[in-house]
Amino acid sequence: MLETEKFQIFNPVRIVYGKGELENSRDIFGVSQVLVICDPFVSTSEYFKRAMEKYKSVFIYDKIVPNPPCEMIDEIIESVYEYSKGAPKFDGVIGIGGGSTLDTAKAISSLLVSEGKLSDYIEGKKRFDRRLPLMLVPTTSGTGSEVTNVGVYTLNGIKRPMTSPTFWADVALIDPILTYSMPRRIAATTGLDALTHAVESYWAISTQPYTEGLALRAAKMILESFEASIDGEEWARDEMAVAATIAGVAFSQTRTTAAHAISFPITSFYNVEHGLACALTLPSLIRWTYKFVSKKMDDFASYLGLKDVEELAKKVEQLMEYSGFSRRLRDYGVKENELEEIAKVSMEANIINLTPGKPSYDDVLRILKEIY
Amino acid sequence: MLETEKFQIFNPVRIVYGKGELENSRDIFGVSQVLVICDPFVSTSEYFKRAMEKYKSVFIYDKIVPNPPCEMIDEIIESVYEYSKGAPKFDGVIGIGGGSTLDTAKAISSLLVSEGKLSDYIEGKKRFDRRLPLMLVPTTSGTGSEVTNVGVYTLNGIKRPMTSPTFWADVALIDPILTYSMPRRIAATTGLDALTHAVESYWAISTQPYTEGLALRAAKMILESFEASIDGEEWARDEMAVAATIAGVAFSQTRTTAAHAISFPITSFYNVEHGLACALTLPSLIRWTYKFVSKKMDDFASYLGLKDVEELAKKVEQLMEYSGFSRRLRDYGVKENELEEIAKVSMEANIINLTPGKPSYDDVLRILKEIY
Repeated sequence: MLETEKFQIFNPVRIVYGKGELENSRDIFGVSQVLVICDPFVSTSEYFKRAMEKYKSVFIYDKIVPNPPCEMIDEIIESVYEYSKGAPKFDGVIGIGGGSTLDTAKAISSLLVSEGKLSDYIEGKKRFDRRLPLMLVPTTSGTGSEVTNVGVYTLNGIKRPMTSPTFWADVALIDPILTYSMPRRIAATTGLDALTHAVESYWAISTQPYTEGLALRAAKMILESFEASIDGEEWARDEMAVAATIAGVAFSQTRTTAAHAISFPITSFYNVEHGLACALTLPSLIRWTYKFVSKKMDDFASYLGLKDVEELAKKVEQLMEYSGFSRRLRDYGVKENELEEIAKVSMEANIINLTPGKPSYDDVLRILKEIY
Repeated sequence: MLETEKFQIFNPVRIVYGKGELENSRDIFGVSQVLVICDPFVSTSEYFKRAMEKYKSVFIYDKIVPNPPCEMIDEIIESVYEYSKGAPKFDGVIGIGGGSTLDTAKAISSLLVSEGKLSDYIEGKKRFDRRLPLMLVPTTSGTGSEVTNVGVYTLNGIKRPMTSPTFWADVALIDPILTYSMPRRIAATTGLDALTHAVESYWAISTQPYTEGLALRAAKMILESFEASIDGEEWARDEMAVAATIAGVAFSQTRTTAAHAISFPITSFYNVEHGLACALTLPSLIRWTYKFVSKKMDDFASYLGLKDVEELAKKVEQLMEYSGFSRRLRDYGVKENELEEIAKVSMEANIINLTPGKPSYDDVLRILKEIY
């Protein structure tokens, strides 16, 4: 019996996977004069420079900061106009980096052919209806931003997610070579983010069979390669790159649930990396949601080669320990009397209602105390 | 370790699933003056008529024959021009029916805004680069045509598959109500087609993790609902409708393998329905390919809740028996001395080389003798 009476699937992004494909990216993208938005460690790498030689002209902007502020994005637009002495002559925009960089490239590709400032669009005063051709190239394996229509920006000090039909890229180029230089800690936190996407998309109330299949397959790849990936083994980095993108497609349709909702205050208040903040509550949530999705989670565990869902929860805990992360909130600077505030802010994120069993404030508080 | 070094995923079709959604199709499609290509039993149904009342104008063409001949398609174009007294005034094309009808609608939506005849495009003399907005609505649950960029047409008496970037529809509308009237035999043959798509896409040499996930999920739904679906239970028809579309997306990326290759001569020479012709060799192929994809097929069987691959092969045989189909070629008018010709023609289909282990002519002949 289908769990959802109605659903849609739409993801028009062309995903191209291949080791070394950045060097073929001009042919894949089909564009010759590009604006490249990237992280500084990308722009200085020999591999990147070689790949960019194939283009007719390349303008590089590499001063991206995390959680991109609207002001930074408006400044990029200004400096591009200055460089171009008027209307920019680019045929397309390439974003190469982590989630913040890809989100910046999404906004830039739309703003370059639209009126106004990014804040107008975040606040809903205007809507993007066009953009320059856009290729997104992730250097981490976690956010899935390369295959979603969401960007997260900072407006007046607050993180603001925004969706736009123009944020679906033309191409998501997955070249795992770019992920080989990820430090262990980033491989671990982004890998935990990808795992959380797979689990949450799978069990979300907004579930649908299409994305369940993707989530299953992604979760299996992640469990098989997570440890070797953080140890730097290339075959495992390849698998994680693919798995993170597939999990990205899954949650691009279903959205995420409580682990993400609770991660927001943990990241904002205590500066805990996003993927780690998600993983902190994931084992408890796997146990808590079980009674609402037993058959479905039994299937999940069975496909993953695990005896039951308890083994899945333990497996997540084990991956965190292998990464060297504490599973206790107290170790991240959280005070016991602050748990209520964390629970309160978590409940403000709408996605918490997509969690099977729809946890209440009390449920969330109980989970937070459990991992305190 | 990833099995494929490079792969692409691209399927821009918006899939909309929902019981009764045909009645909302004008809003979903966003078009008001439509040309509808459909089967005659569709055009006379009250449900269809009610749904069409929402459009501003509807021109219905319902004289579609199976394996659509190019001449028929060129005639439709002519009669549309006649009706319109010059350039057609349609905003979009809707195809509602089985695979042949959807394939016809694909060609019509491109031809209406292009020069020349369909044969020019099949023979590669011209290429489509545009089409009218296109919505495809399947009434069977098997072909997956609603989510592929392939059409199959008859040119000079020979079935000719053709791909075109314009054959990806804007919308695949999956309204299972349209499948409730499928006779038992059509539910069975098209269901076997969907099952074969899932299995073959999963094991194809052109495999990739994304489509493996879809194939896994689709196969599980099919095994759970096939029997109830041919018995006419609505919940099972709903599941089959979704599963067939998901399996369609899977093979739209990987293509199919030996079971399809061998089905072509069985259908052409003995008029055996496509899905049944595919299923005839599927159990033998499940056993034959196992040594080349053991681990992968173990995972498949395990997710399906089966002990091993032998149980999967037996399950397919059981579904055929439940459908009332013989599993012996001799019962379809095949003579023993014709097996060599069947094997020879099967080897001419390129997709046979996508089968794990790449079966030789002798391997195919041995399989045909096994099921003779």
